[in-house]
Amino acid sequence: MEYRKIKDQDKDGDAGEADIEILRGKPLSVPVHNMAALVSSSDRSKWKIKSMVTIALTVLTSSQAILIAWSKRAGKYEYSVTTANFSVEALKCAISLAVLLRIWRTEGVTEDNKLSTSLDEVIVYPIPAALYLVKNLLQYYIFAYVNAPGYQILKNLNIISTGVLYRIILKKKLSEIQWAAFILLCAGCTTAQLDSSSDRVLQTPFQGWMMAIVMALLSGLAGVYTEAIMKKRLSRNVNVQNFWLYIFGMLFNAIAILVQDFDAVMNKGFFHGYSLITTCMIINHALSGIAVSMVLKYADNIVKVYSTSVAMLFTAVVSVFLFGFHLSLAFFLGSTVASVSVYLHSIGKLQR
Amino acid sequence: MEYRKIKDQDKDGDAGEADIEILRGKPLSVPVHNMAALVSSSDRSKWKIKSMVTIALTVLTSSQAILIAWSKRAGKYEYSVTTANFSVEALKCAISLAVLLRIWRTEGVTEDNKLSTSLDEVIVYPIPAALYLVKNLLQYYIFAYVNAPGYQILKNLNIISTGVLYRIILKKKLSEIQWAAFILLCAGCTTAQLDSSSDRVLQTPFQGWMMAIVMALLSGLAGVYTEAIMKKRLSRNVNVQNFWLYIFGMLFNAIAILVQDFDAVMNKGFFHGYSLITTCMIINHALSGIAVSMVLKYADNIVKVYSTSVAMLFTAVVSVFLFGFHLSLAFFLGSTVASVSVYLHSIGKLQR
Repeated sequence: MEYRKIKDQDKDGDAGEADIEILRGKPLSVPVHNMAALVSSSDRSKWKIKSMVTIALTVLTSSQAILIAWSKRAGKYEYSVTTANFSVEALKCAISLAVLLRIWRTEGVTEDNKLSTSLDEVIVYPIPAALYLVKNLLQYYIFAYVNAPGYQILKNLNIISTGVLYRIILKKKLSEIQWAAFILLCAGCTTAQLDSSSDRVLQTPFQGWMMAIVMALLSGLAGVYTEAIMKKRLSRNVNVQNFWLYIFGMLFNAIAILVQDFDAVMNKGFFHGYSLITTCMIINHALSGIAVSMVLKYADNIVKVYSTSVAMLFTAVVSVFLFGFHLSLAFFLGSTVASVSVYLHSIGKLQR
Repeated sequence: MEYRKIKDQDKDGDAGEADIEILRGKPLSVPVHNMAALVSSSDRSKWKIKSMVTIALTVLTSSQAILIAWSKRAGKYEYSVTTANFSVEALKCAISLAVLLRIWRTEGVTEDNKLSTSLDEVIVYPIPAALYLVKNLLQYYIFAYVNAPGYQILKNLNIISTGVLYRIILKKKLSEIQWAAFILLCAGCTTAQLDSSSDRVLQTPFQGWMMAIVMALLSGLAGVYTEAIMKKRLSRNVNVQNFWLYIFGMLFNAIAILVQDFDAVMNKGFFHGYSLITTCMIINHALSGIAVSMVLKYADNIVKVYSTSVAMLFTAVVSVFLFGFHLSLAFFLGSTVASVSVYLHSIGKLQR
């Protein structure tokens, strides 16, 4: 089996096979009968998994934004956002469990893929969900200080906060060029979003700036913390890790429903206002959530940030064809800067 | 004398002395009694001259833009632009001659600083002036296709054209990072100039784009060609080279007066409408023209582009304090990108 995997990766057109290997969440071990082959083959399959989950995240994030644009054209949101969030967590949990069931059937239950866990392992899983909850609560208050387009601009602070926390908490180094590239990514993405009303964001009062910075730190912290969880037990099956993450996601979202939408859900029902688009969006959110976990397990937060930023720019280009949007000069300049940033990041890696 | 120069450069606070050395346009030769001292001292004084002319160009370009802003506040331009251009060339010519006279008095006339020249040497000097003349003529026609702010945006194509021609004609290499930095400089400067009407530039018709590209190529070509002239005879005194360049500048500007403003000059006089600000602007233009020549002799076109771009951004910041201008978010983002570009250019140099 192990030997076949290496052989398969040497062939062309084995993407489907490798794809299943990823979803099975197997650590990438290879037999030790040939050290040279081992290193190159293990490096190559690592690189392959990294690329595949990154592409999956980019494509899913892009289609997510397009679905949002589509649903906005179709009319207002009539469903409750909290129940939709809960559904996303439940679906992710169900997918993780389904994959695990398949793995148990073919490979048997092992120490790495068993669902039962110790308190020591499980105690960290609620933390990312809790951080997101606090961030989402703050989101309601920040709109007292900035408008929605201004908030979209301020959200780019996430890029910087992720880089800084990645450095401080995970203690991973970026080269000078990669830091420069990261600043450029933030500036480029913000430039791409500029419109005639963007300057208003500069009039954001001090409290607004503080909240935006705190929200960026919370969001960055959640990402960095999830990466730390995923990598602390590297041999642990990613689906088990996801299962526990999403269980707590469901729990925290259930609390949000109780606090915010309890009456509406009781009167109109849980799935009130769900349309075909809503269902597509929930499925898409669930799949991109799983892709984020995969990227954090097999790549890192930096790859995640690049992937979602490139997806944002890619979406704008696709929207031109789908919805007849106009691209601004600012968008063109911002995407140029972001593209150069991606190039510099990859060059900077070689020179570390 | 030679020995004193080296000694002086080892002291602190000898900027004034070195400044005079530059204006004297002496090639940086040192006695050959100590090879190690020679290399380090020659490198250091080269670096010093490069820095000084670059700073001079940056400061002069900044104050130039500030003078233009000041003159606009003071009212419309009432003087003829062609006579002002001629005056600038004449002043540059006079300054070069005055410096040469001093050099001849102290050092005597040598092969390198004599004014008389061969046809072979002088034949190339009209070319930059001719290229600028064609470019300035085109400038009148491009406004049929773009408005003035749009033209300011399109002028940033100069950055790219200078880089490309520098590579092709002077055959000097830039590292991958330096190319990336150059694209970023262009994107950053353009972003910094964005305002609500900038998107109109995207509607520029094909002819407008072609003219903008041709103008950028002409301007880049003039710069690159001047650098080639300055460096072909490296030991030739820079003031002699300037003198001949500016003589042809005067000639071509005299033609422009005859073609465009002959009647106005005849009726109202050559200096009609000149104010204190006009005089300041002419002196400033003349000094920055000489600084450009110095930068092209002792540094290169890339340094020139960075210097003038940084000056543009610097001017905007100074204008906030002087004229109460407001800085836009686009300006902030664009200058961030341009600053990272300067940093990457200097990093890229080390890794060539």
